Amino acid sequence: MKEQDVLELIHTSFTGLLHEGAKGFSNDGALVLPNSGQRLAVSTDAFASDVDFRPFWGTAAQAGGRAIKQNLSDLAAMGAQPLGFTWSLSISHDWLNNSEGFQSFVHGAAQVCREHQLLLLGGDLGWQKEGFSCHITIIGETHGAGLGHQSAQPEESLWLSGPLGESHLGLSLIQQAHHAQPFLSDPQFQTWVQNRSKQERKWVERHLNGHHELGLGHHLNGLASACIDISDGLSSDLHKICRASGVGASLELAPLVQHLPQTTPKQSQQVEHAVLHGGEDFVLLFSVPKAKENELNSLIEAGFCLQKIGQTNTEKSQITLHSAGCTKMLHPLGWDAINLY
Amino acid sequence: MKEQDVLELIHTSFTGLLHEGAKGFSNDGALVLPNSGQRLAVSTDAFASDVDFRPFWGTAAQAGGRAIKQNLSDLAAMGAQPLGFTWSLSISHDWLNNSEGFQSFVHGAAQVCREHQLLLLGGDLGWQKEGFSCHITIIGETHGAGLGHQSAQPEESLWLSGPLGESHLGLSLIQQAHHAQPFLSDPQFQTWVQNRSKQERKWVERHLNGHHELGLGHHLNGLASACIDISDGLSSDLHKICRASGVGASLELAPLVQHLPQTTPKQSQQVEHAVLHGGEDFVLLFSVPKAKENELNSLIEAGFCLQKIGQTNTEKSQITLHSAGCTKMLHPLGWDAINLY
Repeated sequence: MKEQDVLELIHTSFTGLLHEGAKGFSNDGALVLPNSGQRLAVSTDAFASDVDFRPFWGTAAQAGGRAIKQNLSDLAAMGAQPLGFTWSLSISHDWLNNSEGFQSFVHGAAQVCREHQLLLLGGDLGWQKEGFSCHITIIGETHGAGLGHQSAQPEESLWLSGPLGESHLGLSLIQQAHHAQPFLSDPQFQTWVQNRSKQERKWVERHLNGHHELGLGHHLNGLASACIDISDGLSSDLHKICRASGVGASLELAPLVQHLPQTTPKQSQQVEHAVLHGGEDFVLLFSVPKAKENELNSLIEAGFCLQKIGQTNTEKSQITLHSAGCTKMLHPLGWDAINLY
Repeated sequence: MKEQDVLELIHTSFTGLLHEGAKGFSNDGALVLPNSGQRLAVSTDAFASDVDFRPFWGTAAQAGGRAIKQNLSDLAAMGAQPLGFTWSLSISHDWLNNSEGFQSFVHGAAQVCREHQLLLLGGDLGWQKEGFSCHITIIGETHGAGLGHQSAQPEESLWLSGPLGESHLGLSLIQQAHHAQPFLSDPQFQTWVQNRSKQERKWVERHLNGHHELGLGHHLNGLASACIDISDGLSSDLHKICRASGVGASLELAPLVQHLPQTTPKQSQQVEHAVLHGGEDFVLLFSVPKAKENELNSLIEAGFCLQKIGQTNTEKSQITLHSAGCTKMLHPLGWDAINLY
């Protein structure tokens, strides 16, 4: 593929989703008119091959969709609705020559954008020696103040919008299998997925498909006092809220792990690790003042899967975890972009 | 350096320039309240080692400043004033271990931000196998409609806000010297720069320091009908305006090359190439309706170095170049991010 082919692929895939000013993707940017008086939510995220996804672990289309979804998840955590995004793509010769993979990646991304009318505002095409990376900056609008990390108060209840740990368990299964016999093609990987149990397949697909809670985030705006999406892991993401808000928190382990199998001590340990420190579940963690708790009922009735997992307190930046009569400190041991390598 | 060191470096360097929501750079984003009814200008740009800059070709601080300036230049071309930017940084172990270079890069970027009160809105820290890359998405505001590529009309005059070719000539000098004896340290490079003639030093520094015309862009908003910054080269950037606006253009070569030495035929050829196809001068190219031309006088009196270089016509996407009685077609032969490699 040459530059012109890449631009054409993007223009074709994003038909109807190109912001007026971005008629050429090769235009770096665009002029956007937000609704008057609305706050903008801006967020940026890198998505790189061999770091955030691996060729042949799932389809390239899944990876492309996931790149967009993790940015939508950031908007969800700010209580915002999407406007558009900019795309900085760095591509190596390997990826340009394997144009099928790159095309699928773009198609997968465009499909998720289409579902949410997320406009492509502009882009920059670059080159890198190996692999492929895409850097997305997404822009949304919030009605009212929006949601942040810094406004949690002591004595609020802490809630999750879905089960934790599934994405991490799915990734662990893939890693183990890949270690035993590396996946070298997508069909090979798909065969392996089909041979998993129903539950394992669910975890693997949760990891590969990504997730976001855009609908819920919109409703939490004005209701929750602080909110974050679980991308690095509960321990790390809750620490961010506690640090930013100057509060502490106490959690119960039992409700966090009840949906997962723990028939052996080893399995229990793996599940506990996945739930507390595993990332990329992209459910929302939020705190709600006691006085507003009953407002959550209408959301639960509307089908949102909300679960109370603990509460905030005045112990600055300290998180305690209660389990079977024991109490221990929960340190931020989730995803660390740099030190893992 | 570990992740915590990187975050601390960024927080310290950007003291007073951190958007409230970006108290942790590790927060991906922030909530921004634009002035009511203003249009937003959004632009994205990649800046990667060994592609957009090379270690030891100038200081890391110059490179960091240049990364910010090329995004300010995009805002200038949209007639916008800066609000803030997001930063996606991908760093290799080599760059983390050579922390002095990385620190200088961040300091250099922060210094340019400080000059323009450009706030850091949020960031994402990632890892890559080799080298270092930073992806910036800058956000600004325009009073009124802002400037784009698509509104040039036939029979308008074409203007440049400064001389072309100097950045390209500077880069060529560095490349030739590096080819003869590679630069392996910054002091070695600085010694080489000091041994250049005054004119050559000016070209080299123009390339290394980067440039933007933020002040002028603001004045052109409402006056120019189309505008672009020369980042890929005159031939390519003028083609973008012509393609987007559905017009053609004719240019005179003489005024474009008059400031550069052309004592030998070889030198003339090099100069012509640098002026027509060399990128990264970051001056503005804009079209102005005949009826508004005299409004440029006050800008010229205020010290802006504006030069008329030709005019638009009805020949769609065709650019003719007139030189010593000859006319030839000017094709877009400037920077091509992918096919150069």
